[in-house]
Amino acid sequence: MEKYFIGIDLGGTKISGIVVNLAGDIIAKTTVPTYAETGEQAILQRIMDVVTAVIKESNVDQAHIVAIGLGAPGSLDLKAGTIISAANLPFDHFNIVKPIMDEFHIPVYIDNDANVAAVGEYLFGAGKGTEHMVFITVSTGIGGGAILNGKIYRGNTCNALEVGHTTVQPDGPYCNCGNYGCAEVLASGTAIAKAAQTAIGKGKITSLTNYDKPTAYEVFKESEKGDRVAQNIRNKALTYLGICVANTIMSFDPQKVIIGGGVAQGGSIVFERIDEVVKERCLKVMSENTQILPAILGTDAGVIGAAALAIMESK
Amino acid sequence: MEKYFIGIDLGGTKISGIVVNLAGDIIAKTTVPTYAETGEQAILQRIMDVVTAVIKESNVDQAHIVAIGLGAPGSLDLKAGTIISAANLPFDHFNIVKPIMDEFHIPVYIDNDANVAAVGEYLFGAGKGTEHMVFITVSTGIGGGAILNGKIYRGNTCNALEVGHTTVQPDGPYCNCGNYGCAEVLASGTAIAKAAQTAIGKGKITSLTNYDKPTAYEVFKESEKGDRVAQNIRNKALTYLGICVANTIMSFDPQKVIIGGGVAQGGSIVFERIDEVVKERCLKVMSENTQILPAILGTDAGVIGAAALAIMESK
Repeated sequence: MEKYFIGIDLGGTKISGIVVNLAGDIIAKTTVPTYAETGEQAILQRIMDVVTAVIKESNVDQAHIVAIGLGAPGSLDLKAGTIISAANLPFDHFNIVKPIMDEFHIPVYIDNDANVAAVGEYLFGAGKGTEHMVFITVSTGIGGGAILNGKIYRGNTCNALEVGHTTVQPDGPYCNCGNYGCAEVLASGTAIAKAAQTAIGKGKITSLTNYDKPTAYEVFKESEKGDRVAQNIRNKALTYLGICVANTIMSFDPQKVIIGGGVAQGGSIVFERIDEVVKERCLKVMSENTQILPAILGTDAGVIGAAALAIMESK
Repeated sequence: MEKYFIGIDLGGTKISGIVVNLAGDIIAKTTVPTYAETGEQAILQRIMDVVTAVIKESNVDQAHIVAIGLGAPGSLDLKAGTIISAANLPFDHFNIVKPIMDEFHIPVYIDNDANVAAVGEYLFGAGKGTEHMVFITVSTGIGGGAILNGKIYRGNTCNALEVGHTTVQPDGPYCNCGNYGCAEVLASGTAIAKAAQTAIGKGKITSLTNYDKPTAYEVFKESEKGDRVAQNIRNKALTYLGICVANTIMSFDPQKVIIGGGVAQGGSIVFERIDEVVKERCLKVMSENTQILPAILGTDAGVIGAAALAIMESK
């Protein structure tokens, strides 16, 4: 009997579901709007509708479906299967796992976006074949997940790999997390966009003034065109990101660090600069034995990761 | 049949051996000089003599001895059982595990000082009862080890938890590791002693001038007596140590961080300051759920840890 797994990616604007086989091939895919304003029960119902619809579309006998993986944003209680709270979603200590299990009579596993993406890259992406792997996502924020000894490493409070809030510049700017000079406040997409705003506010001569509110994407674009102010902003952020990656390597000694999120798509300069900083700051035995690679799952990372979670946790 | 285990601590000046039961009770202990100048074969022979002597002294039937754990300094190849090199010891890619196994016909496990101390604290010290625990030793250098999911976490090149060489101040002083502003160059005993030298060299008015070459111990002593210069040196080092601990907590999300080594014995101020920095810099969920504690095994940490390694690896 071939085994199949379902992955569900719950987002603030849409819910996606896929059916995959053990090789990660997508057999069917369904996406519906989240309609966050309709409340937690209605969203739960829509998740179950997606499960039903995607099974039907896949033509797979339901008896061959082994487990469901669910990737969710926000603060989760993984043991209880609860979404404690989530920005842009109305959940308040809501048990989302049990009703889905009761409906479909198969195990349902939940984890946060970063861990789910880490498992996806580990089973089907840039992390294939490793035993110890760290995933870092750099977009509006900086988050992370790790597979150690072939398993998701979650830590005591399920918050391991909060590398975005590790200090990389002790006297750096204040972050909403309460810390000063953490990686997120210096190197995230938000940080890059904010630095662009500040430069414009200071009246610097830069092509960034062509934009109303330049984003990190635009800072990278203007950098490539040769704008010095944009280049300085980009280089500073990438240096701090490099320090964050270097510290992570010295701590976890992984085979691979896989970097996803919008900033990772900023072109070859991103990985060149991170490699440079890692070479400067890590012990040679570690910089030479750790590959730093872009994530490869792209826009489907969320659902594929959720399905990968179902596969990994079913073993 | 009660099971017994042997722990051997190989140091530059002495070799210690103990026999313990599963509860970690020391049944017998033997110590001999290393005589490092006599060469690798002679040192190996002395290790085997210690094993024989400590078994005899314990009155335990050799058939009840399950395994030997060996804690060694320097650069090791754990899989091969080789000491690649070690400061103050003459080893050069020397296989130390196989001859001991051949002699005593039981498994022999080797690991570095920091991992061995971590396992010791985990099984018989301040880390008892945890599942995820980080051990950091702060003396001449800063090293670390971790027990994750109840097992030693070594990483890809067996160099995980090199937290001493993570960056805590990007534009800090140069360290022999090649990095700038790593924790070791700012917060180790060596760093504290060096800062004292510098202060004296600059002609600062301080009671540290009463010493020829003040050590970290003396910086702590004069700080307690109220010397401002000494206090500044101590506080700066502890702040950087606190950042290193905070970053480690954010990365590993452990139940406990256990701190050993000479600097950890600098009085209550050490843990007060680390706690303060961790509270300032970590996410609340993590600072509130991680205990930061002094190591408790003391001078026998090396041998007890080695015996604990034998117990853990035999499971």
